[in-house]
Order: sequence, then structure tokens, then C-alpha cells
Amino acid sequence: MRRTLYGPDHEAFRESAREFVNRNLLPVADKLIEQRFIDREIWLEAGRNGFLGLEVPEAYGGSEAGDYRFNAVLAEELSRASAAVSSSFGIHADVVAPYLVQLTTEEQKQRWLPKFCTGELLTAIGMTEPSGGSDLASLKTTAVKDGDDWIINGSKTFITNGYNADLVIVAARTSPEKSKGITLFAVETGMEGFERGRKLDKVGQHESDTAELFFENVRVPSTNIIGEIDRGFIHMMEMLPQERVGAAVSNIAHAAPILEETIQYAKDRKAFGQPIGSLQWNKFLLADLVTRVEVTQAYVDNCVAAHADGELTAVDAAKAKWWTAQVQNEVLDHCVQLHGGYGFMTEYRAARAWMDARVTKIWAGSNEIMKELIGRDLGL
Amino acid sequence: MRRTLYGPDHEAFRESAREFVNRNLLPVADKLIEQRFIDREIWLEAGRNGFLGLEVPEAYGGSEAGDYRFNAVLAEELSRASAAVSSSFGIHADVVAPYLVQLTTEEQKQRWLPKFCTGELLTAIGMTEPSGGSDLASLKTTAVKDGDDWIINGSKTFITNGYNADLVIVAARTSPEKSKGITLFAVETGMEGFERGRKLDKVGQHESDTAELFFENVRVPSTNIIGEIDRGFIHMMEMLPQERVGAAVSNIAHAAPILEETIQYAKDRKAFGQPIGSLQWNKFLLADLVTRVEVTQAYVDNCVAAHADGELTAVDAAKAKWWTAQVQNEVLDHCVQLHGGYGFMTEYRAARAWMDARVTKIWAGSNEIMKELIGRDLGL
Amino acid sequence: MRRTLYGPDHEAFRESAREFVNRNLLPVADKLIEQRFIDREIWLEAGRNGFLGLEVPEAYGGSEAGDYRFNAVLAEELSRASAAVSSSFGIHADVVAPYLVQLTTEEQKQRWLPKFCTGELLTAIGMTEPSGGSDLASLKTTAVKDGDDWIINGSKTFITNGYNADLVIVAARTSPEKSKGITLFAVETGMEGFERGRKLDKVGQHESDTAELFFENVRVPSTNIIGEIDRGFIHMMEMLPQERVGAAVSNIAHAAPILEETIQYAKDRKAFGQPIGSLQWNKFLLADLVTRVEVTQAYVDNCVAAHADGELTAVDAAKAKWWTAQVQNEVLDHCVQLHGGYGFMTEYRAARAWMDARVTKIWAGSNEIMKELIGRDLGL
Amino acid sequence: MRRTLYGPDHEAFRESAREFVNRNLLPVADKLIEQRFIDREIWLEAGRNGFLGLEVPEAYGGSEAGDYRFNAVLAEELSRASAAVSSSFGIHADVVAPYLVQLTTEEQKQRWLPKFCTGELLTAIGMTEPSGGSDLASLKTTAVKDGDDWIINGSKTFITNGYNADLVIVAARTSPEKSKGITLFAVETGMEGFERGRKLDKVGQHESDTAELFFENVRVPSTNIIGEIDRGFIHMMEMLPQERVGAAVSNIAHAAPILEETIQYAKDRKAFGQPIGSLQWNKFLLADLVTRVEVTQAYVDNCVAAHADGELTAVDAAKAKWWTAQVQNEVLDHCVQLHGGYGFMTEYRAARAWMDARVTKIWAGSNEIMKELIGRDLGL
Repeated sequence: MRRTLYGPDHEAFRESAREFVNRNLLPVADKLIEQRFIDREIWLEAGRNGFLGLEVPEAYGGSEAGDYRFNAVLAEELSRASAAVSSSFGIHADVVAPYLVQLTTEEQKQRWLPKFCTGELLTAIGMTEPSGGSDLASLKTTAVKDGDDWIINGSKTFITNGYNADLVIVAARTSPEKSKGITLFAVETGMEGFERGRKLDKVGQHESDTAELFFENVRVPSTNIIGEIDRGFIHMMEMLPQERVGAAVSNIAHAAPILEETIQYAKDRKAFGQPIGSLQWNKFLLADLVTRVEVTQAYVDNCVAAHADGELTAVDAAKAKWWTAQVQNEVLDHCVQLHGGYGFMTEYRAARAWMDARVTKIWAGSNEIMKELIGRDLGL
Repeated sequence: MRRTLYGPDHEAFRESAREFVNRNLLPVADKLIEQRFIDREIWLEAGRNGFLGLEVPEAYGGSEAGDYRFNAVLAEELSRASAAVSSSFGIHADVVAPYLVQLTTEEQKQRWLPKFCTGELLTAIGMTEPSGGSDLASLKTTAVKDGDDWIINGSKTFITNGYNADLVIVAARTSPEKSKGITLFAVETGMEGFERGRKLDKVGQHESDTAELFFENVRVPSTNIIGEIDRGFIHMMEMLPQERVGAAVSNIAHAAPILEETIQYAKDRKAFGQPIGSLQWNKFLLADLVTRVEVTQAYVDNCVAAHADGELTAVDAAKAKWWTAQVQNEVLDHCVQLHGGYGFMTEYRAARAWMDARVTKIWAGSNEIMKELIGRDLGL
Repeated sequence: MRRTLYGPDHEAFRESAREFVNRNLLPVADKLIEQRFIDREIWLEAGRNGFLGLEVPEAYGGSEAGDYRFNAVLAEELSRASAAVSSSFGIHADVVAPYLVQLTTEEQKQRWLPKFCTGELLTAIGMTEPSGGSDLASLKTTAVKDGDDWIINGSKTFITNGYNADLVIVAARTSPEKSKGITLFAVETGMEGFERGRKLDKVGQHESDTAELFFENVRVPSTNIIGEIDRGFIHMMEMLPQERVGAAVSNIAHAAPILEETIQYAKDRKAFGQPIGSLQWNKFLLADLVTRVEVTQAYVDNCVAAHADGELTAVDAAKAKWWTAQVQNEVLDHCVQLHGGYGFMTEYRAARAWMDARVTKIWAGSNEIMKELIGRDLGL
Repeated sequence: MRRTLYGPDHEAFRESAREFVNRNLLPVADKLIEQRFIDREIWLEAGRNGFLGLEVPEAYGGSEAGDYRFNAVLAEELSRASAAVSSSFGIHADVVAPYLVQLTTEEQKQRWLPKFCTGELLTAIGMTEPSGGSDLASLKTTAVKDGDDWIINGSKTFITNGYNADLVIVAARTSPEKSKGITLFAVETGMEGFERGRKLDKVGQHESDTAELFFENVRVPSTNIIGEIDRGFIHMMEMLPQERVGAAVSNIAHAAPILEETIQYAKDRKAFGQPIGSLQWNKFLLADLVTRVEVTQAYVDNCVAAHADGELTAVDAAKAKWWTAQVQNEVLDHCVQLHGGYGFMTEYRAARAWMDARVTKIWAGSNEIMKELIGRDLGL
């Protein structure tokens, strides 16, 4: 099915993204998986290519693209190479960026954004806690005012970029009496009492450094508050559509090329005297999966276009997020199966993609949470 | 999710279609189901509204809309009222029309099209045979040249509008030595040897007259040949995308309003002291179904736009057809379940829609045939 | 897979059941569907064969089989012929019987059981109400004491055998202050104020008479109370395992022969030059369905054996009920698809079975209710 | 649901198996995963417990249990601890054992079986080849007679126990002109030209050593032929039911305890102010999964009983194998989801089980191959 989302500018940008991937990511794919983080030099090179500052005004070193389609192109190309690199970059450049651009003071902008764009300042966002999962309302990390500063205590987990981030936006409870009395703080490397656990051993997404973060009496100056006091919950809600449409773009862009490769594999691989893809069961299955991906892509493209126009609702983003995660996982499971025994060997991209994808039904609001939101929107 | 397919003209046309439905169909819904055909007066009224000649040049009484979106709007509105009326009208105005407009001689156009547009000449198309199902290549009906005429022998089955049609386009084998040596003939009421079986007892789609047709030495003049001799197979292939995108439009437009009604039912109906829609299982399920419908709608809308631009491929139409049939049936099955015992009572629209929908995975190329085509297109 | 459930006695009984089916049901299959009830003569013949009194002591005209396997054999054979006949007979001989045998006084036994066994006294059970569905706790029908009698007001719906039953066990609220303060009453034909609505128009199960029942100041003598006052809820709970295991037996026994017939159809029907069953997609699908049925049969057989030993728990019966309903519906949907266009024609057994089966996920405790019970049993 | 498969002897044996697991496997679980093989000392301890010689006559050091239920008990207990240990042990004691017991000469028995039972002689079986997957008929490894010896050339892959096995039964083509002209050879460590590749990097099942094997002019004496020349294909076919029922036992025994743990987790873990298991969506889901496991267990138990009686057909074993693999994978995927973010962390048993399970739909005859066999058995 033809796509009408992108124009020549986007395709030109895609070329540069693809070149970046080919030069900087594919050659070190195994190394990244092994070391479980992305080298800072890769971030810096991304910065030099203008990939980190799409959302940032030119005045602070960004490219101020002003068109979410560019973010989507980048997410697509990165996802082709590695789900984890795509999500690491996405957390920094798609998810954290709007907080630092839209909610910050002039002073904060000057302090953080230039290095944010170059990749010298790597960021993460800390919402999830060990005891709370998707339930933001039960957040336990606290921040208590102490003079001009705030003292943060608590912990966060499953934080993408958490091990290497220089700055983490931390959601902490500032008004215990209000269920949503949450404020966002920029906690920076070197602040006393801010510690990180080891890089977590994940099922997949091995290229990214996911970590638990600990805050023990971390003193954070008021000048590190992001947005308004006690309005962190609302700030996060406002940013969710972009995070979710970004997830949707990546989910389907991750599955689609693996499916293409699997189709090629099914043409090349022979059994019982013929290409396995010409066996009717496999042929129909692949026809089904291709349909599933294209149908889903149509919806995601609509979401991207709507978001670029500022018209994407949180609930439509939620639909895109859970649905793409579902399709991605279904498609990749079948891709593994079509690879036979090789589908269980991590050296095969289908195997790795299958492991990588499993988390997308869980993170950034699980499929169940998405359905809760959609159901609520239906008035149920 | 916002839809961008239609403009103000389409929406104005939708209003007139909806008024037609409200005035002419909804009040007689039970009668149509009971009698198992659509009264000719309804066809004539549709003709007066210009609904039958969207594809027909103005010179022959049509409105020559030249924009498939209008067909889609009509299919959507009819499908809201009755799947069977939508498919009956679709066979005539969407499926047969292009044959009579694109493949006919000037003389044929003058002879048939004006009454085609008024509803005085009701049409059907006869491809499927009792022994052949979806396998056109094994067509057994024959036409043998006899002077200037052709003698047709054979039978067709599952012919929508078959009982009441005044003109049936019949695919018959004219070159037995060629697997695709098929020619199309306009067989008309009153031709000797052309008989119809009883209206078939179907699981659903009760408003339409589906019948078996019998041809015993039916003498058809050469002037009733549609298109070129021995090229009927190719003619049919060329028309398939429009038939399939039309099916896709109807499938989803049939399921979507029933889902809306079911959501309303789930808000109104109480059990265990609360609306059943607020029970989490049902809430999540409805969230899932709404997502499924919206995602599918995005793809169908893309197909309609592409078809309006003359760019829809047969394989993308095949994807849309099977996928929508699948989603339609899944959604309606859950709608039945959500109605509890009432979902098994035919007076409930969900029950009836469930029965109506079952055939969409089978007719006009079953889901399996669609997957075969898609698989072939993948080079498998 | 071999079955070990039945011995020679059961197989002998199966022969007599099969003969009954062949003589009395198959020849009038279309008539029963048309008239929407089972002729009393068929009930009487069943009585003469001893099929109605398996649970009834010999003293009252029953055969006192004392082995639930016989009930299961009968349900299997009836289900092969007609889902609706099986459920009609099941309501009388499997569901109502234990109430009339286990909960009745000697006087009641003598009054009702002999004619119960001959088929002269046809029975039904009225739990479900228009507003309540599966939620017994919200029962609205009331019975108020008036001297030695009780005055019943309210209504029941979806009552199998409701139109023709001579005696209906009616659950009515006798202690409004207790959520489970329900008592069971035998309401009999001819009692003033006891009226029936028309036979309901159902999606399937057309051979049985399902009706709405109305009670307006129906005076019922105390001698018609079944079991203890205010303990009707508990009585019903105790009977549920048998009702559910019976449903499970019938569900799978209904789907299995249709699957066998479909396999035969797939061997006989040719398309694309070969039997459609030899097309790999269909072959694998049929292999899947056969597996699904056999796996399910193993569980059902275990349940029957456990119930015959008095060891079947309500929760295991619930598992069997919902799972078999799910499998039955899945299998039959595929059987329809494998029949192509004929699968949508009611003259085909697969089509009719598909319509019949839809209610099994809903009635006698919907699949959702079953999962609620199972979940509760897990301590959730 | 009660199980009737096992008696007191089996349960006593289960106790000793469980003690073995608790003492020898659980304490070193992480070590085995890390090192990617099972220490020989564990094998020797298993030998001392009599776990390796259940199929071996007492004369050669076995326990000659003569009742497959004991094998099933052992597989169940091992699977609770580790899918990979269960499959490693299963290959040796369940799959290879019958070859060495039933097809060997007295001399071979004396040479191999005593050490087979003690664990000093660890075995594997080499069927699958890099180019062939499940298609045994296209086997490329050859054995050519040279005097009294045979010269083997070729390679095998995905060989469980392949890295550490002392003796590998290798299927090699001995009559190239016959598609099934295959002979089985015992290739032993130290034979010149027999090399192993590295331990393969698998998605899961990390405790076992899976390897590629290479044969370059390996000279094998005739006394190492297992069974008859050119009848290897038939030998393998005859052994398949036991391999498959063993797989079925392990598949469900692997999933069931993880489901139990997940139910416990869902009771303990709180979100939105309540245990996540009491959220209706999760409750119904867990009810569904428990049903699915119990239904499947009933079928597997029937298969085990039938196999113990020598009555299990290859096709019923195939049904059990694919179905259990399907259920196992579905159940574990939901278990992961119910664990939220922790489900993506390898330290959680659900995460690891999910990775381990993926191969069961592929190995020892993929689900597709199983369906092919079942379809063929249906006469399709």
C-alpha cells in the first residue's frame, strides 16, 4: 500500500539517518549487545548529525524541525537497526526533549539544551518505581523542601539510559496529601546520594543500559525543577501522546523489516524440495502477516500526521501503542517459527527481534493500561 | 481517530443517503427480512436519488460522479441499515456498473444504462458455479457459437440479486482448450431456457434474493457479449479491485455501528450492580474492539483514496477485503456475547449482524483465496 | 485417542439411543426446525425407551441408572442429531430431574415423577430474568406467603422448554432482605396468572421452544415448594455441576461429528484440481481442529468420570463448560469456512450447527461467569 | 481436576526426583545457565539415583522400570526446575535409551549400557542437519562402506548434549538411491574427524549444551551400527512416539508451575490499591490459563497411560506434542505480561521460562510437521 505521509524532505532526511545507521550502528551491533550500552561516541556522532535536537530551537543548538514526521523517520531507521538503540535515542530526543524545551526556564534551556543536542548531556526519565509499575498515582519517591533545595528519597527502576544518563527527570511526590501532587526534578550525575544499580539483565533490548536508580537524601536545587510544582502528573500526561506515538512508530518499524527478511528467507530456504515460503501454510501465513503490518502502518501514519498537526489525542496514541505492540509481537513470533531451529539462535535477527519486542507490550504503559484509558474514553 | 478521506461534498451526499435509508429501508426492515428480497419500488426510489448511476456517464442517465468516495459513502450508509441491502445495491451499482460502462458498445450503453440508472433494469453477475466455488479456472458453463448467436448451458449459484435481476452477466467458457477462455454474456429475463431456482435459505443477509441460475440451451445474440470474446477472465480480474474495496468498505461500515450500539448497551445494561461495560473484562474488550475497528478503518480509507486516484492494486484490495471480513466477524461475535442471551435473539441487531457477516469471509473470493493472491504477489 | 470412559453397558445403551435418534429425530429434523418445538409424541417415545428417568428411582418409574455415564451417552447421541433436542431433553432429564428426585417430599415424588419419566409431564427451570441475566443475586421475581399458599409475581426469560412445559421450577425471592433468600416453586400449567410469551426467535437451536414466562399473582400451594424455604440459591448451586458437565458433554459431542463430516466434505469437494482437504492450509487447519476436539474430549471424559464418582467440583465443571463452548464455536466456525458458500446455506448441517452453537458461550452461566468462578476459586 | 494417572509408587519416585532437583539443580541454577552445560557430576548423581536407566534392563545396570509413568514423573520434576535440564536428561534417558536397548547387539549392550546408566557415558542423537531441518528425507550426511568400517562425512546441528556427549547416534545416508536409505551409527568421542562446533547461542534453554557436529572422514566400525543397515529411517519413526510424548509431558510440566507462581505473584503484587490478580481482566485471564493447562494435562495423562500400555499411536503423540507446545508458549507469554516489567528481567523465572519454551514449537518435529502428520492420518 502506498504511503502518503512523507515528502521529499523526509526522504532526504531518511537517507542521512540510514547512512548514520550503516556507518555507526550496524558495524558494532554485536559489541553493543555485548557491552549493554551505546558508546558515547555514537551519541556524539548522532548529535553532529542533528538527530538529537529535532525538537530543540536553533538558538540552543537544535534544528527546530517543527515537524514530527522527522522524528518518525529517525525512529523508523533506528528501529530497523536495533530496537534498543531506537528506544534509547527516543527516550532522549523524543521523550525527554519536550520536557526540557517546553517546561524549562530560559536559564535551564541555556544550561542543558546545547549539550543535550550534541550528546554531551545524555538524559533519561524516571517514573516507574519497583513497587508501582504503571500506577503513577502510587508513586513513593518523595521530595521535601529544605530551604531553597529539595531533598529526594526513593528509587526508580527499569530506567532506559539509566546507567549512563547525565541528567534524569525524576518524578517525586511533593504533596503527599494529594494523589497527584507530583513534581519533576532534574537529577544530575554527581549529586550526592544519587546512585545507580547495575545494568539490569533483560530478556532483550541488550544494547541499552536499563538500570535501577536510588536516591538517598539527594539535595536538588529549586533551579532544577522542571515545570511547575505539584503539576508533574499533568506535565507527564501532556507528554504521553508523543511518547506513545513514538513507541507505535518504532514497534511497527521494528517488525516490518524482520518480516521482509523472513519472506526472503522463506524464498531461499528449501525443505521437502521447495522453498518453504511456497508451502501453502507458510504462504498464507506470510500473506496474513504482511496484511497485518500494512493495516497497522496505515493507522500509525495517520497518528503521525495527526500529531504533526497537533491533533493527536492521548487515547488515539494509546490505541496505536498497544495495537502496534501486539502486532509486532505476533509477527515476530511467526518470523521465529518460519526460521525453524535458526529462529532460536541469537545470531539470527529474527530471534533477537523477538526477544527485543517482548517489552513493548509492557513498558510506557502496558497494553492493559492502554485499554483502561481507551475504555475510560468510551465512557465505560 | 480523525478521518481525512471525505470532504463537504461527500458529507452532503451522505446526508441524502442517510435520509434514503431512514425513509425507505429502516421502516421496512422486518418486511425485507421476511420476504427475502428488496421491493422494486425501493430500487426505483434509489434510482430517483441518483444512487444507482454514480459510475454511469450523464449521457445515459447517470451522475458520472467520477469519484469513488461517493460509492464508499453510499456503501457505508447502506451497511449501517442492512448488510444485505448494501451488498445487493453494491452488486448492481458498484460491481456490474463498470462492466456495462467500460466494456460495452454504444448500442449496448443506450440499450441498458438508462434503465440501469433508474432501477428498472436490475442486474447481477454470475461467476460462481455449484462445483467450482472460488476457482474461476474450472468454470463449467459453456457458450457455443451458433450463427450469430451463442448457446449457453450450465448453472451458477450463490448469485446475489439472482432471483429478481433483469440482466445477469454470465461468465461462460467459449474456448474449452484454453483454461482462461471465458467470455461474458448479458443474459436477460425472458430468454428461453434461463431459469432460476428458489431463493436460497441463507444463514443471514436475508433481505437479498440469492439464487441458483440454470441455463439450458439459452440462445444469446452476439450483441449481448460484454467486452471481448475469450477475454472475460481478464475483464473480471480488472474489475476485482473495485469489488473488493467495496466489500472492505461495507464490512467495516457494517461492524462499526453495531459496536457503537453495543457500547451503548454495555453502558445501559446493569448486572452485579453496575453497567456491564464498566466491568473490567468488558471494558478492555470494548477498548480492544474499538481499536481494531479504527485501525482497520484507516487502511480502508487509504484504499478508497488510492482507488479514487486509480492507484489501488488488486493485491492491496485483497488485503483490505480479507482483513475487514476478519475484523467484522470478530467484532460482531464479541458484540453478541456482550448482549448475553439477547445476542441470540434475532430481534437484536447484533444477533442479525453476526449472522449477516459470516458470509463476508467466503464470498467474492474467500479469505483463503485472498491470501493466495497476496502470497503470490510476495513472490511465494 | 482411545477413550476409556465407557464400558460395554454404556455402548449397548448408546445403540438404543442411536436407534431412537435415527427413528424418531432424523426423519423429522426439518419439521422440528420449522415448528420450533419437539412433538410430545417424541417425548413419550423417549419415555418408553427409558431415556427420561435415568436419575429417577425405579419405584417412581425411572431406571435409577446410578451412573452418570448413561446420561452422558444419551447427551452425546442426541447432540449428534440436534443441539436443541439435546438441550431440551437435558433440561428435563438431567437438570430438572435431580431437583425433583433429591429435594422433594414423598408426596411430590409420587405426584410428579411417574409422569416425568413417561414424558407426560414435561419440565423446565426458570432462573434467568429479563433484567438479570447471569446474575442470580439480583432476582426480581417474588413469592409472598398468603395463608398456606404463596403468591408469585415476576417474569422469566430464555426458558428452554418454556412454551410447552407442564411444570416449571421457578426461583423466586422469598426473603427480600437476604440477597440469597430465594425459594424454588413448582409452577404448573393451568395455574391462574401463569402465562407464556411467544416462542422466542433465536439465532439457532430452532427445534426447541424457548419462551418468556409471566407470573401475575400466581397462587402456588406450599406443597409445590421444592426443597427448603430460602435455600433455593444453595439448591441451585449444588445442582450446577451436573448442569455444566452435561453442557460440556453436549458441546463437544455436537462439534465432533460436524468436524468429521467436514473432513469428509474436504476429501470429496474438489477445487484447483484436488480435494480441498489436501490443500496444505486446510489440511493443517483440520489437523488443528481434530487435536483441539480430542484434547477437549479427554478433559470432558475425566469430568464425567469424576461426576459419576461424585467427585466433580463446581469449578472443574465450570472449566469444562466454558472451554467446550469455546472449542465448539471455534471448530464450527472453521467447518463453515471449509464448506465455502454452502457453509452459509441453512440446509447444510455445518451452517445450522454454527448457529446452534453460538448460545453455548452464553447460557447456563456465560463464559465470563465461568471465569469469574474459576478466578474466585484461585483465590483471586 | 483430579489426576488418576499415578499410583503410590510413582509418587514415591516423585519424591526422590524432587529431592534430587532440590539438592543438585536448584542450588546451581544460575551456574548452569552461565556455563551453558550440566556438570558431569550432576549426571553421575542422577545415575546413582537410578534416573538414567529406567529403560535399561537390570542386567546392564538399569532399573528396568517397565512403566513409562516413571519417565513421565521424572520429566515433570525436572521440568519444574529447568526446561533445559529436562530436555538434556530426556534426550539421554528417554530418547536415546530405547535405541541402545532395543536395537543393539549383546556386545553393544555390554559395552555401552552400564556406563549409560551411571552417567559416565553421556549420549546424544544427531538427526537434524544445517540444510534440512525437519525434513529427514533430504539427509545429506553419508556413510560409505570401507572394508569392515564405514566412513562418515557430513554435519549435524542443533544437537542437544552435542558438546559433551560421549556417544552420538548419527543418522547417515547409506543408500543414496533410496530416499529412506539411512543407517544409524554410534559415533564416539575420540574418533578421528569427529569435531564439534562451539556451544550454540540460544534464545533460551541455556543450561544445555547444544552444538553443531562435524564429520570428516570419520571411520566407524560396523560394530557401532545401531539396528539394521538402511532401516534407520524406520527405527527413528518407531521411536518418535516416545520422544513426542516425553516432549508433551515436559512442555506442560514446564508451564504449569510457572503459572502457579504467577498466580501467587498476582495475589502478592499490588497496583491501584489491590492485588493485580483481583483486577477482573487478570482474574479472567488466569482462569482461562488454568483451564487451558488442566485440559491439556488430561490429554497428556491419557497419552502417557496409553504409551505405558504400548497403545499410543504416533499421530496421537504428534497431537500431544504440538498442542502442549502451543499451550505452554501461550501460557508463559501471559505469565510474562502479568509480571509487568519484571517479566522482561531474566532473573525472574517467568522471563526465563518464556525464552526456554520458544523452541518447543520447533524442535523434534515442528508444529507444522506435526500437523502434516495428523492431516495425513486423516487421509488428507
